[in-house]
Amino acid sequence: VTVDLDFFRKIASAAAAETLPRFRRHGTVDNKIEGGFDPVTEADRAAERAIRAVIRGAFPDHGILGEEDGGERLDSRHIWVIDPIDGTRSFISGLPVWGTLAGLTVDGRAEAGLMSQPFTGELFYCDGATSRYEGPGGGSELVTRKTMDLGAATLFTTTPAYFRGRKRDAYDRLEGCVRLARYGVDCYAFAMVAAGFIDIVVETGLQPYDIVALIPIVARAGGVVTASDGGPAEKGGEIVAAATPELHAKVLDILNAR
Amino acid sequence: VTVDLDFFRKIASAAAAETLPRFRRHGTVDNKIEGGFDPVTEADRAAERAIRAVIRGAFPDHGILGEEDGGERLDSRHIWVIDPIDGTRSFISGLPVWGTLAGLTVDGRAEAGLMSQPFTGELFYCDGATSRYEGPGGGSELVTRKTMDLGAATLFTTTPAYFRGRKRDAYDRLEGCVRLARYGVDCYAFAMVAAGFIDIVVETGLQPYDIVALIPIVARAGGVVTASDGGPAEKGGEIVAAATPELHAKVLDILNAR
Repeated sequence: VTVDLDFFRKIASAAAAETLPRFRRHGTVDNKIEGGFDPVTEADRAAERAIRAVIRGAFPDHGILGEEDGGERLDSRHIWVIDPIDGTRSFISGLPVWGTLAGLTVDGRAEAGLMSQPFTGELFYCDGATSRYEGPGGGSELVTRKTMDLGAATLFTTTPAYFRGRKRDAYDRLEGCVRLARYGVDCYAFAMVAAGFIDIVVETGLQPYDIVALIPIVARAGGVVTASDGGPAEKGGEIVAAATPELHAKVLDILNAR
Repeated sequence: VTVDLDFFRKIASAAAAETLPRFRRHGTVDNKIEGGFDPVTEADRAAERAIRAVIRGAFPDHGILGEEDGGERLDSRHIWVIDPIDGTRSFISGLPVWGTLAGLTVDGRAEAGLMSQPFTGELFYCDGATSRYEGPGGGSELVTRKTMDLGAATLFTTTPAYFRGRKRDAYDRLEGCVRLARYGVDCYAFAMVAAGFIDIVVETGLQPYDIVALIPIVARAGGVVTASDGGPAEKGGEIVAAATPELHAKVLDILNAR
């Protein structure tokens, strides 16, 4: 399987054609879950259709698992896991820190992936071998920061409120150990781990389509992404991404301490 | 005093020439306050010098109050209040949600202001009469969303942790009333109130240079910005920005309830 920048650009362009015209337009928000607030836009649905068409055209025998429309050909060894707008809350708030995610799993392991931010014109991607950035100022390799100590680390999570009970206590312990803790920005935080400007992202309640694309981007840049129990991250749940193996081990120690 | 788009573009360009080349570069962070984490970059300092030069050139008798270098000619009726990088934590984390702020007070009241985001190429500004946006997709008037009810509102704050004791209780009450609460993004949240995609921003511990530029941008777009006691926002402290007067009144009621 060849997954190169050209292919990722096709996915990013197809998605952007649906998302960007609807970004910062009023009246495109509705509620997916009655009573809760889980915004889905027309952009989300249309972009997923567009991404599926690009994948089907290039890899007709690959499976596809999406946020909006479920799965197809999930018995394939190769499965694309896509989220047309990761960070819908940022999207509906007009903030340019959402992204389009498309990740390729082979036999269940994430091998390649794309995070695209069309308003800023940025791509963060892993072609299976290296992680790279393409943006308005040009391209570069993505390399994590060599942070070893929690006391020197910047930590991001969507919000501490997502951690409940003992998990909240564990998160709070971690936050108490780091140099800087900030909230929000979803996939963009993982991209910045790969780029070397954030050291740790911890999230809970992730779906596979929230994380699969980001795993190889961070890992091939030098970082580590696992579930908080140290197992594979591909199934989502509680996820730890860290800039170095050493830092990752320290985060897991704190989250799993009793 | 004429403060038009051309002048704001000069400020934005002068600042961007110092900030952008240092955005997403490693090794430009230090600590302003021993023991705390208050990052200041070379970009911050250099951009403030550049902005001051532009203001002095256009308005030699105006005063200038900056984050980095203090005040000059503060006995003038016209005082510019500037923050070269509002959102330094986002800046050092590689996130494009910081901004350059320059606001003009006349006899102590904020009358005009600029928020510039050079990585995205966006200007949000008020020339004293109207609030406008200039970005990669063109320009438009800024108009707040006509949200009247807390239950329909999106709320932003940097982090609830900044509210202490009874103020935290009041903040939590407010968060419990809104449709969606999100954290972070500093000046960008105020810009999105003006643009009609966020309804409420509540912050505490603001300095004048964090808020003065944003007051007229939000107010001339149809919103209301005051201190949480209803007084003028120009001195900073605990600040409430809301998309409509009706929503603003409801926020103040909740924050000041006993």
